[in-house]
Amino acid sequence: MTAKGPILVINPNSDVAVTEALSRAVEPFRLGGGPAIECLTIAESPLGIMTQRDVYEAALRTADLAKARPDASAIVIACYSQPGLDLLRTETRRPVVGMQDAGVLAAMGLADRFGVIAVAEGSIPRHLANLARMGVMSRLAGEVAPARALTVAESGDPSASFDLLREAGTKLKQMGAGAIILGCAGMSPQRGILEEALGIPVVDATQAAVAQALGRVLVGG
Amino acid sequence: MTAKGPILVINPNSDVAVTEALSRAVEPFRLGGGPAIECLTIAESPLGIMTQRDVYEAALRTADLAKARPDASAIVIACYSQPGLDLLRTETRRPVVGMQDAGVLAAMGLADRFGVIAVAEGSIPRHLANLARMGVMSRLAGEVAPARALTVAESGDPSASFDLLREAGTKLKQMGAGAIILGCAGMSPQRGILEEALGIPVVDATQAAVAQALGRVLVGG
Amino acid sequence: MTAKGPILVINPNSDVAVTEALSRAVEPFRLGGGPAIECLTIAESPLGIMTQRDVYEAALRTADLAKARPDASAIVIACYSQPGLDLLRTETRRPVVGMQDAGVLAAMGLADRFGVIAVAEGSIPRHLANLARMGVMSRLAGEVAPARALTVAESGDPSASFDLLREAGTKLKQMGAGAIILGCAGMSPQRGILEEALGIPVVDATQAAVAQALGRVLVGG
Amino acid sequence: MTAKGPILVINPNSDVAVTEALSRAVEPFRLGGGPAIECLTIAESPLGIMTQRDVYEAALRTADLAKARPDASAIVIACYSQPGLDLLRTETRRPVVGMQDAGVLAAMGLADRFGVIAVAEGSIPRHLANLARMGVMSRLAGEVAPARALTVAESGDPSASFDLLREAGTKLKQMGAGAIILGCAGMSPQRGILEEALGIPVVDATQAAVAQALGRVLVGG
Amino acid sequence: MTAKGPILVINPNSDVAVTEALSRAVEPFRLGGGPAIECLTIAESPLGIMTQRDVYEAALRTADLAKARPDASAIVIACYSQPGLDLLRTETRRPVVGMQDAGVLAAMGLADRFGVIAVAEGSIPRHLANLARMGVMSRLAGEVAPARALTVAESGDPSASFDLLREAGTKLKQMGAGAIILGCAGMSPQRGILEEALGIPVVDATQAAVAQALGRVLVGG
Amino acid sequence: MTAKGPILVINPNSDVAVTEALSRAVEPFRLGGGPAIECLTIAESPLGIMTQRDVYEAALRTADLAKARPDASAIVIACYSQPGLDLLRTETRRPVVGMQDAGVLAAMGLADRFGVIAVAEGSIPRHLANLARMGVMSRLAGEVAPARALTVAESGDPSASFDLLREAGTKLKQMGAGAIILGCAGMSPQRGILEEALGIPVVDATQAAVAQALGRVLVGG
Repeated sequence: MTAKGPILVINPNSDVAVTEALSRAVEPFRLGGGPAIECLTIAESPLGIMTQRDVYEAALRTADLAKARPDASAIVIACYSQPGLDLLRTETRRPVVGMQDAGVLAAMGLADRFGVIAVAEGSIPRHLANLARMGVMSRLAGEVAPARALTVAESGDPSASFDLLREAGTKLKQMGAGAIILGCAGMSPQRGILEEALGIPVVDATQAAVAQALGRVLVGG
Repeated sequence: MTAKGPILVINPNSDVAVTEALSRAVEPFRLGGGPAIECLTIAESPLGIMTQRDVYEAALRTADLAKARPDASAIVIACYSQPGLDLLRTETRRPVVGMQDAGVLAAMGLADRFGVIAVAEGSIPRHLANLARMGVMSRLAGEVAPARALTVAESGDPSASFDLLREAGTKLKQMGAGAIILGCAGMSPQRGILEEALGIPVVDATQAAVAQALGRVLVGG
Repeated sequence: MTAKGPILVINPNSDVAVTEALSRAVEPFRLGGGPAIECLTIAESPLGIMTQRDVYEAALRTADLAKARPDASAIVIACYSQPGLDLLRTETRRPVVGMQDAGVLAAMGLADRFGVIAVAEGSIPRHLANLARMGVMSRLAGEVAPARALTVAESGDPSASFDLLREAGTKLKQMGAGAIILGCAGMSPQRGILEEALGIPVVDATQAAVAQALGRVLVGG
Repeated sequence: MTAKGPILVINPNSDVAVTEALSRAVEPFRLGGGPAIECLTIAESPLGIMTQRDVYEAALRTADLAKARPDASAIVIACYSQPGLDLLRTETRRPVVGMQDAGVLAAMGLADRFGVIAVAEGSIPRHLANLARMGVMSRLAGEVAPARALTVAESGDPSASFDLLREAGTKLKQMGAGAIILGCAGMSPQRGILEEALGIPVVDATQAAVAQALGRVLVGG
Repeated sequence: MTAKGPILVINPNSDVAVTEALSRAVEPFRLGGGPAIECLTIAESPLGIMTQRDVYEAALRTADLAKARPDASAIVIACYSQPGLDLLRTETRRPVVGMQDAGVLAAMGLADRFGVIAVAEGSIPRHLANLARMGVMSRLAGEVAPARALTVAESGDPSASFDLLREAGTKLKQMGAGAIILGCAGMSPQRGILEEALGIPVVDATQAAVAQALGRVLVGG
Repeated sequence: MTAKGPILVINPNSDVAVTEALSRAVEPFRLGGGPAIECLTIAESPLGIMTQRDVYEAALRTADLAKARPDASAIVIACYSQPGLDLLRTETRRPVVGMQDAGVLAAMGLADRFGVIAVAEGSIPRHLANLARMGVMSRLAGEVAPARALTVAESGDPSASFDLLREAGTKLKQMGAGAIILGCAGMSPQRGILEEALGIPVVDATQAAVAQALGRVLVGG
C-alpha cells in the first residue's frame, strides 16, 4: 500500500501567525499511519482577505498552489470566505474542503438544529448568506454575537471572553440549538471548555474541515 | 493525555456477517494514536430491521447498549433506518452518528449537488423522505436505481453489477451530481473502482459515519 | 349499514385526570348516528411523557393497545409528542391521527397564516421542529408564550391566565396570524372566550384531532 | 344550548346536477344533534366556472350568498378554484372552507406524503400552483393522470374507469404516496372501492371540506 | 416600423391626486421613440382600495378598462394589492405588470438580499404574504417600519420623514440588505436622496413597474 | 439636467461576432433622451468563457474595465456565467446587471411560473444551480432542451431550428409555464416569432438585462 500524500491546509492570506494557529488546532489529526497535515501561507496575498477582489485573487493563487503540489492528497481552504472552492473542484479530482461549509456540515451531523456564535453582529448577514447558498437555513436555530464585539485576539482568550461566549451559547440553546459552531477561527482555544460548560457539542470549523478531508483521504478518495 | 475510548459501530440487527462487512469497511480508520473501532451486533434483534416496530425496538436496544458501554467515546448507528438516533442524543453527551445522515453530509462537503444510487426503485421514496427531514432536498441532483434491482450480495460484486452501477452513476452526473452516495452498504467494495470510473467522489455511508465520529473523538468532543 | 366502531382517543401517559379532560373536550363530537368516542389511559406508562425514552416506550404501548382493539374505527394519539404515529400507520389501515399535526392542519384550513400560543418559552423550539418536519414553516406567522410561564392548571383557568392569553393572541394577530392554535391541551376551556375576544378562529388540538378522525370514520375510511 | 345553523355547501356554478352529487357525497355527515348540511346552486352563474373572470364573478356572488344567509354556521366553497375564499374570510367570522385546500390538509393528516389523481394531464399544473400557494410542495409524492383523459361522467363510473384509477393510484404508491386525493369531484363514487384496492387512504375533497367545517361548527367556532 | 401603443398605468381607485403623483414618478420613462405612458383613474372605484371586496371589484373594472383600450401596448396595475393581475393575464396577451411584484423583482436584480421600508408596522404581514406567494422569502433581509407610523403625506416629505427613513434603511443594511424597496408609493419623492444617503440602491415600485413594461414593449412583446 | 453616461454591455470573452449580435439585440433600447448603449469585447479574454478559471479571470477583467469607465452609468455582464457579478457590486455603486438573473426576473414579472428552453441537455443542471442560488426554484415550471442539441449558429436560424424550439416551448406550456426564457443568447433572432406561435411571452436575457439597467439609469440610480 502506497503512502498517502499530505493534506494541505491553505491559509489564503499572508499572515503566518494565523497559519501557526491553524496548525495547532489540527494537531490531534496527525496520527500514526495517517497522512501528514501541512499548513501553508500564501506569501503574495495581503495580510487579510478583506475585499471581494481579495477573494477572487486569493482563489486563483490557492488554485495555483494546489496545482503546484500534485503530491497532496486533499486541499482544505482555511478561510471563512472559502476563496476558490468551486474553481479548485473543477481543476482537481482530489477532495477540496471549504472551512465554513465543513463546520456547518459537522454540526448538522450532531444535532437537528445548530447555532452559530459570531465574533460580531456585522458577520451575521454574511454567514446567513452562506447558509442560504448551502440550502440549510431550515437547520439553523439562530446566530448571535456576544454582548460586545470581540477582537480576534480576545476571542481566543478565556479571561477576556469566556463569559460572553457562554452567554451567547446559552441563548442559542434556548433558541433550540443542539450544537454550536464557533463563527471565528480565533475562538478555537475555547472550544473544549465551552462544550463542557454548555453540555452540547461545540464545533471548530478548521478541525471539522480537516476531519472531513481525512475521512476522504483514508479511504483513498 | 488519556487514551480515547473506542468508537462503537452498532449494527442494530443480529446478522454477524453484516457486522463483519462493516468492520472491513472501516479498517482504514484504525490509526496509530487514534481510538479503537469496535463493530457490534445486537443478538436479541431480528436478522434484519424490516418493520417500523423493529426500528422502535432496535432503538431501545441500541440505547441500552450505548449505556452499557460508558467507556466508548462515540456511537455510530450502522443502519440506514438510524434507529434511536434522537433517543441516544438525549441520553448521552457523546457523539451519536447516524449512517444515512453522515453519507449525505459527506457528499454535501464534496460537491454542490449530489446523487444517490439506490439498490432498487423501492428504496427511493424512503431515502427522499430522509432528505426532506434533513432539509437538504435542494442539494439533491437525483436518485436512480440500476436498470434491474440488485440483491445485497450482487451489489458488492463487480462482476455482477459494476456495469449497472457505472450506468446509474453516469446518469446522475448528467443530472448534475458532483458526488455520488452509495445507497446501500452492500455496494461498499465497489466504491473505489466506481469513483475511478466516474471521475467524481463516491461516498460509502459507513465510512462517512466513522470519519465523522473520529473527527469528534480526536478533538475530545 | 353496519355500526362504526368507536374512535379511540389514547392518552399515552397514566394520568387519569388528563384523560378525563380530553373526554370533556371532545364531548361535542358524540353525535346521534356517529361513532362512540372512548378516551383511554395507558396504566403502565409514567404519569407524564417526559423523556425521549418515554416517547419510544409509549409508542410501543400505544401500538399494542391499538392492536388489542380491532373494534375501533380510528386512533387519536392525544399527546403533543405523538408517540408511535409512524409505527401505528404501518401496523393498521385504520386512520391514525396525531394531536399536534391535527391542530396545525385545522388552522391551515382556516387562514393563510397561523400563530401558536405556547405555554412557556421552552416549548417553542420543540413546536418549531415539528412544523419543520411537517414542511409548513412558511404558514407560521409566529409563536409566542405568555409574558410569564403558566402551569398546566393555570392555563385552563380564565381568572389566572385569560389576560395573558389574550395579550399573546393579540401579538400574534399583529404578526399576521389569521388563526391561533392553543399550544397546550390545558388551555382548552378558554378556547371559546379567547376566540370571541380575538375575533379570529382559535383551535384546540384535541378537538381538531377528533374532528379529523370523525371525518374519516363517517365516510368509511 | 342553541341549535347550530346549517353548513352551506355552495356550488358556485349553476349546474344543479353537480349540486345534487355534492349532496349525496356529504350525506354521511348529516348526524343526529349535528348541523344540517345544505347544498346550494348559484343560479346567476354559468354552468361551469371556466375562466378567471368566472372565478372573480363567482367570488362576489358566493360572498353575497354567504351574507344573505346569516343563519348559516359555516360556508364550504365547493369548487376546485375556491372562488372568493379570501374575500369571504374578510367578510365573515364564520368558518370558510375551500374544497381543494381541505382535501390536501386531510391527506396531510393521514400520511407523510400524498399523491393526487388528476382527471387529465391538463389539470396538473393548476393543482401544483395551488400546492405551491399552500406551501406544502414538500409533502407531495406526485400527481398523475389516468393513461387516457376521463370525462367527468366516466370518472365516477367504475365500469368505465376503475382500472385506470387503480393503475394511477398504484403508480403514486410507488412514488411514495401514503394517501391519495381524488383530483376531481366526479370520482367521488369510487373513493371506497379504490381505497380498498390500494390499501391506503383515499380522500374525497368535498367530504374533507364538510368534515373540516363540521369540526369547527361543533365546537362553536 | 409601426408606432407602439401607450403603456397604461392604471390607478384602480378614484383618487386623481394619486394618479398625478404616479405620472410624475414615471416621467423619466417618456423617451423619444418610446411609447407614451398614460396614467388613468377608475372613476367608479372608491377613493381607496381598502377591503378585499374592493380588490375583487377593482379587478373586474381594471380588466374592463384594459379591454376598452386595445390600443395600449402594456398594462401596469398601480396599486400594491395588484387587483386583477391574474385575471388580466388570462384576458390579454399584452404584458400585465403588478406594482408590488415589479419592485421586488427589480431589487432582486440589484442585490443578493433586499429590505423593505414599510409605511407602518401594520403593512408588514401583508407584504410578507406577497413575498411568500412570490416564492422569494429567502431573498428578504428584513422589513422594518419607521420608528413612528407615517401618513402617506408625510412619507413623501423629507422635512417630515427623511431622518426616519434613513434610520430604517440603515437598520436594513445592518440586517444584510443590499437594496431597499420603498414599501409605499408615497415615499417616491425621497428615493434619490435616500439612495444617496444609504449608498445602496433604493427602488420605487411604480418606476420599477413601468421600466419592466417598457422593457417588454420596446422588444415588441 | 446632466446627460446620463452610457450603459456598458460587457461581453467578457473576445469574440467580436458575439458582441455584434448583442448590439443588434439591444438596438430597441437606444431611445431619444435615453443613455447610449455600448457593447464591448474584452480582447485579453479567450474566445469563450469555458472553464471556471476563465470565469475568475474574466471577473477580474470585467471589474477592471468597469473601473476604467467611470463615465458609464450601468454595467451589464453579458454572459450566462455572469463573471464578477458579486465583485463589481462591491467596487461600484452603479447598477450591475447579470444577464442570466435578469432573464429569470423578467419572466417572473410576466407569469406565475416560467419555463426555460436550453440549447442542449447538458446546460440544464448549470441553469438549475443558478435558479437554486437565486432562491426561485418554486417558480420554475420546467426546463427542456430541443429534441436534438443545437449549435449556437443553428439556434438563431428559424429554418434550422424553429420547429424544434416551438416543440420545446409547447411542452413547457403543458408543464405550466406562463412565460418562456430563451436559455441561449444565440436564439435571440427567433424570440418574436416564437412568442407569436406560442401565445405566451418569450424573454431574451440580453434584452431583459438592458431593460433592467435602463430602468435604473433613467431614474438616476
